Amino acid sequence: MVKVLVDVFGGDHSPEEILKGCKLALDANSDLCLILAGDEDVIGPKITEYGIDSNRIEILDAKEVISNDESPTEAIRRKKDSTIVKGFEALRQREDIAGFVSAGSTGAVLTGAFLKLGRTPGVSRPALCPMLPTVTGGIVGIVDCGANVDTKPENLVHFALMGNAYMKSVFGVENPRVALLSVGVEDHKGNELTKTTFHMLKDMPQINFVGNMEARDLLSGEYDLVVCDGFAGNVLLKSTEGAVMSFMKMMKENIMSHTSSKIGAMFMKKTFKELKNTLDFNKKGGSVLLGCKKIVVKCHGASKAFSIKCGIEQVVEAERNNVCGIIADAVAEANDAE
Amino acid sequence: MVKVLVDVFGGDHSPEEILKGCKLALDANSDLCLILAGDEDVIGPKITEYGIDSNRIEILDAKEVISNDESPTEAIRRKKDSTIVKGFEALRQREDIAGFVSAGSTGAVLTGAFLKLGRTPGVSRPALCPMLPTVTGGIVGIVDCGANVDTKPENLVHFALMGNAYMKSVFGVENPRVALLSVGVEDHKGNELTKTTFHMLKDMPQINFVGNMEARDLLSGEYDLVVCDGFAGNVLLKSTEGAVMSFMKMMKENIMSHTSSKIGAMFMKKTFKELKNTLDFNKKGGSVLLGCKKIVVKCHGASKAFSIKCGIEQVVEAERNNVCGIIADAVAEANDAE
Repeated sequence: MVKVLVDVFGGDHSPEEILKGCKLALDANSDLCLILAGDEDVIGPKITEYGIDSNRIEILDAKEVISNDESPTEAIRRKKDSTIVKGFEALRQREDIAGFVSAGSTGAVLTGAFLKLGRTPGVSRPALCPMLPTVTGGIVGIVDCGANVDTKPENLVHFALMGNAYMKSVFGVENPRVALLSVGVEDHKGNELTKTTFHMLKDMPQINFVGNMEARDLLSGEYDLVVCDGFAGNVLLKSTEGAVMSFMKMMKENIMSHTSSKIGAMFMKKTFKELKNTLDFNKKGGSVLLGCKKIVVKCHGASKAFSIKCGIEQVVEAERNNVCGIIADAVAEANDAE
Repeated sequence: MVKVLVDVFGGDHSPEEILKGCKLALDANSDLCLILAGDEDVIGPKITEYGIDSNRIEILDAKEVISNDESPTEAIRRKKDSTIVKGFEALRQREDIAGFVSAGSTGAVLTGAFLKLGRTPGVSRPALCPMLPTVTGGIVGIVDCGANVDTKPENLVHFALMGNAYMKSVFGVENPRVALLSVGVEDHKGNELTKTTFHMLKDMPQINFVGNMEARDLLSGEYDLVVCDGFAGNVLLKSTEGAVMSFMKMMKENIMSHTSSKIGAMFMKKTFKELKNTLDFNKKGGSVLLGCKKIVVKCHGASKAFSIKCGIEQVVEAERNNVCGIIADAVAEANDAE
């Protein structure tokens, strides 16, 4: 049995879509139990309304919500009765809870995880790791994509170790091809941060380091994991997302301006639907925060039920594969070897 | 009359496509003259072959070529007879030459420009500024996209001033909306570099600073110029390019797997062609290097004739609009105001 805590009041479509996602996850995973963090008075009646089995849930009453506009650090300190603060406190205190899923404020989730839950011993900085689809039908992870905007080479080395352990244990990638995001593929290309990191990664026997990667090759299928500081990783993730959205928008507008294209588009419905499905990065769960004492999944603010269901299943998968333990071992081993 | 120097031996398709591009540019611009840098023995016969008017060109004999695999600094020092070294030396010495176009090694072009041509007085760091198409049919500039991978806030302020002057003078954008690339739109979001830069840009009366921009909104049409360090800018540019290419590849493969989509695609030829044309960032010239004593245009290594023609015309436009002078004034004024 796996127990997952869910922030019912995080995200644009909370609480409805979050609760619907919980129902989907419970229906699909018979050994799953959920702890729903949020206002009991609101959640209570909805449990019955959505047909959620009350024997498989627990409500963690939390009346406050942290919004995107608040300073994360202040909000975590001040809003003691918020879903995020109470959620992380329960996560730290209770051994039976495997992880936490939230579509709430990214800053608050990260700050909450750092301050209330705590890092895995030995990890210098936890990091966010989203997965993207590649043109060859596989996936590629980006670590870090925004948890750390000012980093040192040692941090990037830990990102690589954690991402590597995650790809191996959860996705069964035997020998993940780990690349370093840079401005060119040549060994000498990069800024001060990546140049030092390059040499550190090159010397690590634990990592199948394949060298520098240019941003344009992210989705090529040639890499399993891309290591970068959180600022560059955020730019990489969001510009990839944005370019795809912009392209679709341009295509839609262009189609409407040509009669022949309008006809063509009708025949291409299947392709458009499948592409949209493949490239909707936020539909299949969230970014996993690696390097905290338990698994935290940050879903996109716009997440709907299906995405929340996937986020919950990400915690289940990570728990089943003992990701936290494997990461702790990998980092400890590397730290000892230094 | 405008005189432009062209590196005939830079790029994957040199010298043929470069010379064809020169011919296109000469045909389209009656008051243009070109100086062709490269091996005279090779260029000479081709001039006649391609029907280039020998009265409107001059050959700058240079027997060596700097490749992408060489260390730029070493190559610039060692290869005295290369198109890039000889080209930049001529550019510095001769008042009659307006600018330089090359599709050769980016590192060598930048190093050559810094060491042989020199910066505009007052400019802390020259910066590369490519233009991308937006979904609203306009353009957006990125400054810097790779000339400076380790920067200080003062450098980013100069990038903003130079890009602003460029957008105004060459593209006639009256009051360019200048944004700072960051990990969120909120004022407090960013890393140490962007947080300091944010406050500096906010206080500049010369700049219509509209705040932070997230990478996903690059092509939205809401911004005219995006300011960033060269590492992040390079990631922004290349991941946007890469995502569009990956999307097109995925679409092509998906179309081939459905009969109805194959039929639909035939009707959509016009749309595909127009989109490809709009989104081929490298087809319409190159990235302009702002902040050197003369205009330098770095075309993509894969440039064909049309792109070279556009690159030459970028120099012509910049010269006609006195970009170098306007940049020098803008930077001097801002430096004085400090």
